[in-house]
Amino acid sequence: MEDDEVSNKQVVLKNYVIGSPKESDMEVRIIKMRLKISEGSNAVLVKNLYLSCDPYMAGRMRNPDSDHRSFVESFLPGSPIMGYGVAKVLESGHPNFKKGDLVWGITGWEEYSFITSPEALFKIEHSDVPLSYYTGILGMPGMTAYVGFYHICSPKKGERVFVSAASGAVGQLVGQFAKLMDCYVVGTAGSKAKVDLLKTKFGFDEAFNYKEEQDLEMALKRHFPEGIDIYFENVGGKMLDAVLLNSRIHSRIAVCGLISQYNLKQPESVHNLFSLIMKRIRVEGFIVSDHYDQYPKFLDMVLPLIREGKVTYVEDVAEGLERAPAALVGLFSGHNVGKQVVVVARE
Amino acid sequence: MEDDEVSNKQVVLKNYVIGSPKESDMEVRIIKMRLKISEGSNAVLVKNLYLSCDPYMAGRMRNPDSDHRSFVESFLPGSPIMGYGVAKVLESGHPNFKKGDLVWGITGWEEYSFITSPEALFKIEHSDVPLSYYTGILGMPGMTAYVGFYHICSPKKGERVFVSAASGAVGQLVGQFAKLMDCYVVGTAGSKAKVDLLKTKFGFDEAFNYKEEQDLEMALKRHFPEGIDIYFENVGGKMLDAVLLNSRIHSRIAVCGLISQYNLKQPESVHNLFSLIMKRIRVEGFIVSDHYDQYPKFLDMVLPLIREGKVTYVEDVAEGLERAPAALVGLFSGHNVGKQVVVVARE
Ligand SMILES: NC(=O)c1ccc[n+]([C@@H]2O[C@H](COP(=O)([O-])OP(=O)(O)OC[C@H]3O[C@@H](n4cnc5c(N)ncnc54)[C@H](OP(=O)(O)O)[C@@H]3O)[C@@H](O)[C@H]2O)c1
Ligand SMILES: NC(=O)c1ccc[n+]([C@@H]2O[C@H](COP(=O)([O-])OP(=O)(O)OC[C@H]3O[C@@H](n4cnc5c(N)ncnc54)[C@H](OP(=O)(O)O)[C@@H]3O)[C@@H](O)[C@H]2O)c1
Repeated sequence: MEDDEVSNKQVVLKNYVIGSPKESDMEVRIIKMRLKISEGSNAVLVKNLYLSCDPYMAGRMRNPDSDHRSFVESFLPGSPIMGYGVAKVLESGHPNFKKGDLVWGITGWEEYSFITSPEALFKIEHSDVPLSYYTGILGMPGMTAYVGFYHICSPKKGERVFVSAASGAVGQLVGQFAKLMDCYVVGTAGSKAKVDLLKTKFGFDEAFNYKEEQDLEMALKRHFPEGIDIYFENVGGKMLDAVLLNSRIHSRIAVCGLISQYNLKQPESVHNLFSLIMKRIRVEGFIVSDHYDQYPKFLDMVLPLIREGKVTYVEDVAEGLERAPAALVGLFSGHNVGKQVVVVARE
Repeated sequence: MEDDEVSNKQVVLKNYVIGSPKESDMEVRIIKMRLKISEGSNAVLVKNLYLSCDPYMAGRMRNPDSDHRSFVESFLPGSPIMGYGVAKVLESGHPNFKKGDLVWGITGWEEYSFITSPEALFKIEHSDVPLSYYTGILGMPGMTAYVGFYHICSPKKGERVFVSAASGAVGQLVGQFAKLMDCYVVGTAGSKAKVDLLKTKFGFDEAFNYKEEQDLEMALKRHFPEGIDIYFENVGGKMLDAVLLNSRIHSRIAVCGLISQYNLKQPESVHNLFSLIMKRIRVEGFIVSDHYDQYPKFLDMVLPLIREGKVTYVEDVAEGLERAPAALVGLFSGHNVGKQVVVVARE
């Protein structure tokens, strides 16, 4: 090994995924690389600290020619998985960054990454909070909850709010934001432990395990005898159909995610669209990255809430890159409790 | 027959309807009534001139206990059908109306009606235009096109607009409004004659017969190579699914009606909701009567357009109450060409 050569552990996509991603679709390998930016490049070289497992990544694992359900281009088989992460700058060819800076943004699932478009990185200015938060509450999922709830849902004080995948990276925050507006908030999740968490830790008024309900329409009627004003949609499928039947007049549905549908060959169908007219419902999809210009405003709001303990955040931390494939795959069976993070290195 | 007694021909609902309404679900009968308002009542007594056949009326013909797809309460079997119409006041117990006034609003499918809540009637102030227009372009369907297009669709000059059931009471106007905003407008309808009408009479840029397309997704791709900005949804079902796959980023779908679904036992399903997120689509249902406060503003806009010939309106006129059941039923097979009106009397 030459002087400035290091070994770089990577998680690589082996082949395009069909159906749900499996651990065996990825592999860990070690390559050698030089920790050096080439002369004149404006890339930055980073050491990855925390990586984020996000549901949309399954879409990037599929063959783009046979599947059109991804927001962004597919990963290249044989190359490292890419995703959000927190990293430390080791060397910078870009005027905005210098050695030692902490950043969050899209990086590789590996120990060291060259980031060739560093303009898209966010510099981390506040490190009195856990650094890993920049994969969650202070990163993309936090912004998603913020934009989705405050902008897309147009919430009013005291409204009745329903959140699916409510204990996850986005959902736990949506529920807490809604409680800060004195809303009545009900969440659903896929295990007893998560349901308890919703009520005891995140302050949801009510919560239920959707897997134990025979009839989702009835479950919602029980929890919302007067109907739902706001549905923060993370899952899709049958839950959306049940919500449509329990919506109040002028209710809003923010379509953040449809995780129950991502890995199906054919998406399930929704039937109860007549409610859209009957209840004058507004349904709106959004993608968080359209709204990143609001990140500073978001931080101004959420950092004090974290520091004062008015908002809490639960992470599910996997130690080491080797655990990353299982952590990512686990999102689709609800294995994660809270935001799924992978620690590559702590500093 | 006493002096002030007249015979009153009525169209009556025989029994609750299952599936699509049929002519035999209604019957014409003649009753005797006194053309007199009882002392102290604030009802008005009207002579009905023009009646409107509207798709939502099918919902009112169903048993409310077994079907929840109606905006308004069901008709009473044995009683006359109710619906929008144009009428002349014969006698008034209400201070806002006097003998000879022309009005439009909800009345009965009969020659003479007592209207017990005349507050909901609109007084007709402009009669230099055909009176029957107050069942269409100057009545509920006109307001629907106005509210749906200008308010719900948030149109911008030059956008790409698609309208289904485009030659109907609402659709023909939506297309013309869109052309007034220099939009590229494509409509679909169920016959060659209607398709021709769209292009030659209403100025749509393109039109096609949806019944002749094997693949609606491809038909839309052909007409909207760059995708759809605005979909004015009148039909639902497969068309909505095809639109979702052809939507542009930040497109809007105004859900006005789902006529293809009204008479199905189980509504068809829609699959392509993932587009809502990918394309950041806003879908919004609305009901015109929520917006009747804007009727005067609407008239200010549309009356000059009619008088100057900048907007045209096609009606399909059935002569006589006896023809009303067939006219109503015909909406669901596309029998009507333009706004379906029934003439009870011309003055
Ligand atoms: N639009 C955007 O810009 C944007 C940005 C970020 C995230 N999102 C979306 O937001 C949603 C939540 O993301 P997240 O990061 O907060 O993930 P997460 O909730 O932390 O993890 C995913 C969770 O989804 C639930 N789930 C998995 N499969 C399911 C199924 N078939 N039916 C119902 N629930 C299922 C599981 O929880 P249970 O135990 O409760 O089943 C799982 O823990 C996802 O749909 C994601 O794609 C969208
Ligand atoms: N939200 C509201 O407040 C509001 C108010 C008024 C009307 N609406 C809705 O707006 C829509 C249009 O109403 P309108 O008064 O203008 O009616 P219309 O278009 O004048 O008449 C109905 C037309 O719908 C088409 N149609 C019937 N069955 C169909 C099917 N299975 N698939 C596709 N098209 C079908 C037929 O035309 P083709 O020959 O083209 O098939 C028929 O002529 C309806 O859905 C109605 O319920 C809503």
